[in-house]
Amino acid sequence: MTEQETVKARMHRVIFGTETGAGRNFDVVLIIVILASVLALLLDSVASINDQYGHWLFAAEVAFTVLFTAEYVARIYCSPNRRAYIFSFYGIVDLIAVLPTYLAFFVPGAQHLLVIRIFRVLRIFRIFKLFHYMSEAQVLLRSLEASRHKISVFLVAVVTLVVVFGSLMYLIEGPQNGFSSLPRSIYWAIVTVTTVGYGDIAPGTPLGQAVAALAMVTSYAIIAIPTGILSAEFIRESQRQISRRQCQSCNKYGHEKDAVYCKHCGAKLPGSHPPY
Amino acid sequence: MTEQETVKARMHRVIFGTETGAGRNFDVVLIIVILASVLALLLDSVASINDQYGHWLFAAEVAFTVLFTAEYVARIYCSPNRRAYIFSFYGIVDLIAVLPTYLAFFVPGAQHLLVIRIFRVLRIFRIFKLFHYMSEAQVLLRSLEASRHKISVFLVAVVTLVVVFGSLMYLIEGPQNGFSSLPRSIYWAIVTVTTVGYGDIAPGTPLGQAVAALAMVTSYAIIAIPTGILSAEFIRESQRQISRRQCQSCNKYGHEKDAVYCKHCGAKLPGSHPPY
Amino acid sequence: MTEQETVKARMHRVIFGTETGAGRNFDVVLIIVILASVLALLLDSVASINDQYGHWLFAAEVAFTVLFTAEYVARIYCSPNRRAYIFSFYGIVDLIAVLPTYLAFFVPGAQHLLVIRIFRVLRIFRIFKLFHYMSEAQVLLRSLEASRHKISVFLVAVVTLVVVFGSLMYLIEGPQNGFSSLPRSIYWAIVTVTTVGYGDIAPGTPLGQAVAALAMVTSYAIIAIPTGILSAEFIRESQRQISRRQCQSCNKYGHEKDAVYCKHCGAKLPGSHPPY
Amino acid sequence: MTEQETVKARMHRVIFGTETGAGRNFDVVLIIVILASVLALLLDSVASINDQYGHWLFAAEVAFTVLFTAEYVARIYCSPNRRAYIFSFYGIVDLIAVLPTYLAFFVPGAQHLLVIRIFRVLRIFRIFKLFHYMSEAQVLLRSLEASRHKISVFLVAVVTLVVVFGSLMYLIEGPQNGFSSLPRSIYWAIVTVTTVGYGDIAPGTPLGQAVAALAMVTSYAIIAIPTGILSAEFIRESQRQISRRQCQSCNKYGHEKDAVYCKHCGAKLPGSHPPY
Repeated sequence: MTEQETVKARMHRVIFGTETGAGRNFDVVLIIVILASVLALLLDSVASINDQYGHWLFAAEVAFTVLFTAEYVARIYCSPNRRAYIFSFYGIVDLIAVLPTYLAFFVPGAQHLLVIRIFRVLRIFRIFKLFHYMSEAQVLLRSLEASRHKISVFLVAVVTLVVVFGSLMYLIEGPQNGFSSLPRSIYWAIVTVTTVGYGDIAPGTPLGQAVAALAMVTSYAIIAIPTGILSAEFIRESQRQISRRQCQSCNKYGHEKDAVYCKHCGAKLPGSHPPY
Repeated sequence: MTEQETVKARMHRVIFGTETGAGRNFDVVLIIVILASVLALLLDSVASINDQYGHWLFAAEVAFTVLFTAEYVARIYCSPNRRAYIFSFYGIVDLIAVLPTYLAFFVPGAQHLLVIRIFRVLRIFRIFKLFHYMSEAQVLLRSLEASRHKISVFLVAVVTLVVVFGSLMYLIEGPQNGFSSLPRSIYWAIVTVTTVGYGDIAPGTPLGQAVAALAMVTSYAIIAIPTGILSAEFIRESQRQISRRQCQSCNKYGHEKDAVYCKHCGAKLPGSHPPY
Repeated sequence: MTEQETVKARMHRVIFGTETGAGRNFDVVLIIVILASVLALLLDSVASINDQYGHWLFAAEVAFTVLFTAEYVARIYCSPNRRAYIFSFYGIVDLIAVLPTYLAFFVPGAQHLLVIRIFRVLRIFRIFKLFHYMSEAQVLLRSLEASRHKISVFLVAVVTLVVVFGSLMYLIEGPQNGFSSLPRSIYWAIVTVTTVGYGDIAPGTPLGQAVAALAMVTSYAIIAIPTGILSAEFIRESQRQISRRQCQSCNKYGHEKDAVYCKHCGAKLPGSHPPY
Repeated sequence: MTEQETVKARMHRVIFGTETGAGRNFDVVLIIVILASVLALLLDSVASINDQYGHWLFAAEVAFTVLFTAEYVARIYCSPNRRAYIFSFYGIVDLIAVLPTYLAFFVPGAQHLLVIRIFRVLRIFRIFKLFHYMSEAQVLLRSLEASRHKISVFLVAVVTLVVVFGSLMYLIEGPQNGFSSLPRSIYWAIVTVTTVGYGDIAPGTPLGQAVAALAMVTSYAIIAIPTGILSAEFIRESQRQISRRQCQSCNKYGHEKDAVYCKHCGAKLPGSHPPY
């Protein structure tokens, strides 16, 4: 192993890892800097603050961009597989965090792209790695994944429902009450069925109010469906987790408490004894 | 079997089935055309788009109607039991998808019926057949079916509650705050209890606001009820599904969906195939 | 048993019972009449309908009152324990259904009380008796009863939260943004935390909007609490129900699947055998 | 034990305890006084009531402050560990309940702090101690505690989502539709995703409405997540509670809360008493 290799490996351990003290400190500092840069973006967009402190925020932004660029280059440099990092989710997010500022410098009219820098906020998902929350996040994702078919069926049903209710209201209320087109009526239906209820469009005729009331009561049962799906899935997942048993043949987890053989490969599970 | 019979059977396999490649392709194309026709309807209802592209959208509508009519005739032709298809849910939806356009041609003043064509959107439920989601959809429907008594009790309770709260607010607030009649007050109560909250009618007197606050807090517990009912039902359903699967070697039940081997005796489960 | 006794017993069977055909028919007719009388009340409160059909609705109301009075007298007459009926929940609701009309006849200025007749709608809860939904309704009530302590704790926490958030907003926003007094600010907090969100009062200052955003995100977790409580309770209840086992010594239900002895009185349960 | 010691011990039993009749009475009176003082604060903040009854409410406030000060001093006096009480949650709340009134007397311009007295409402949490609801409250807190990692992951995801949706809407809608800055757009996103939906800021452009509709449908699945997490946790907690109870005759665990006899062997369970 060359001297340079060792430096790269050490950099990788600090930048990508969380096991060492230096690695943890690096991540803590990084997250603080990310949050500070997002806060600067938020403040910069407020007209009154921009008028008064605009040049300070611009200076801060330059500093953040230099820092993030250095970090991005360092990440590429010390990655064992550079292509994999560059095209990974975090690689792209890391690039988006700095690119708009450079574009705004060099390309005239790209000022509008600056808002895209807000996607820096996605970088704080690295916080999960830091606090060992990855497994919790994965349990949530696995439950969502397991119930994705049911959720799809539910979403198709909701889309159909809002199209039907929106069209009915377009027929009943018409343009004089704000239901000026089918898309706008469907927008109203979504606002209503999700119980957001802005009130920017609201039924004015008695029949329209009756249909709207029906839509609302329907949305009741509908809200219960995804909740019920996820509750059932989380409960199943948590019961499977309780046993935390691993098959020593195929290394898979997720065995029920009373399982004697692995349901994936049929091998005998450790610590299990036939129930007699 | 005559030559014609074979053509009919083949048509049926393509149009109604999803097992063959041709059958799948037919359904994919159909769903794209359905979504395109719904999109055309939505755009057509926007005044500014209608002014500019109205004749293009009219041409598209004619094309869609011809296509759907051909499909409808073909479906009737190749159905083994034509009456059953025509009066089935999908048969009626398929008819409604084309009828309004013809009516608008021949009957003056039927223009208003054109919105009914939006019910074409119901045809995309065929998408479930395509993606083998029927079983998921059926699990959801079966759970809703199983809990329909509890949901009915809940709905009667909600109706009573909104009538009582609406009447109270009619007494307290009166017409000067928008509570101009009992039906309108009940409409307000539904908007409030379902937490939609447009704000088109809102209590103005302190007593009215106190009663409204009570209604909102009550609606809290109430939203929890259908969710709880469905959660319990989904869990029962998933447990029932698990318990229905039987090992042919040890005759024991209770295997999870993704189980390949029996957890009790390690034998291969029927109807399962190793995941490769 | 005298002749008169038999008449009373038969009347009781028809009016209070649902086992006989006459009893069922009586209840069906009664529920239709109740709904018709509620509908008449709703229509009567709409100014335009009242102007045109007021005298018809008045006539209908007289007829309904006569019918309900006759029914009320008959119920008292054929009750084995009259005092128990009169002071029961339904006895009082039955009285309230007719009393306001008489008061409006005899007492000047009692017109305002007429709205109270809407409580007639409570009488349709008898519909549950008719459709054998009593057990479903009781399961729901038992679950609510079992979780009443947890719900109380939750409600005290919610009340505290809305008082604290309301007071904070009163300090931050003040009268110029509609937060003109503490009760009004607390009303805003209830509207916000229950996610109703009328928008009649909304924060105007940046700090107020930040605190409001915090209140909304908090309300998220809070909505999940009663739902979780009831879900857990419904699931437990449904699992207990599955076994549907009754102790033959104390006649109590609700035994778990693996119970061998009654948990209430210690007697051996029927159909159970020690697990060896 | 000196005479003085006995007085202190007796005071402690009455003021802090709920076992004796005097202790219960003390707490009941205290809670009534707390609620009365909070009510007085609420009424005092209403301009019209303050104009008319301001001096009465001021007198009441002086009385409440004297009472609470006496109680605070008594609590300090009879605490075995005074420092522990003073710096406990309740010790600080008890101090906040009286301090603002004194400050307003002596410090000019501290009138604004008077609203802080509303935190007196936190003192009613002592009500749980009175009604033996502590265990219920602790079950809820333990469940929230157990699922805090999952809830954190969820909250980070929600924060990211509202930042992303808020920024998109800022780009699309811009200042002319009320999306005048990034923080304000994010405030809109929070109001929308939590389904509060004031309507003070609402999308005006078709593209903005489409993105808003997407945000609403997303918020659907999102509301289901914390509910599912807590449902699963409550069920686990209730199963854990059941499993903790042990029969002293057959040593088996898994008895329900209301069980009096062991369901496995019929022996009386410890700590249970027949319900008569």
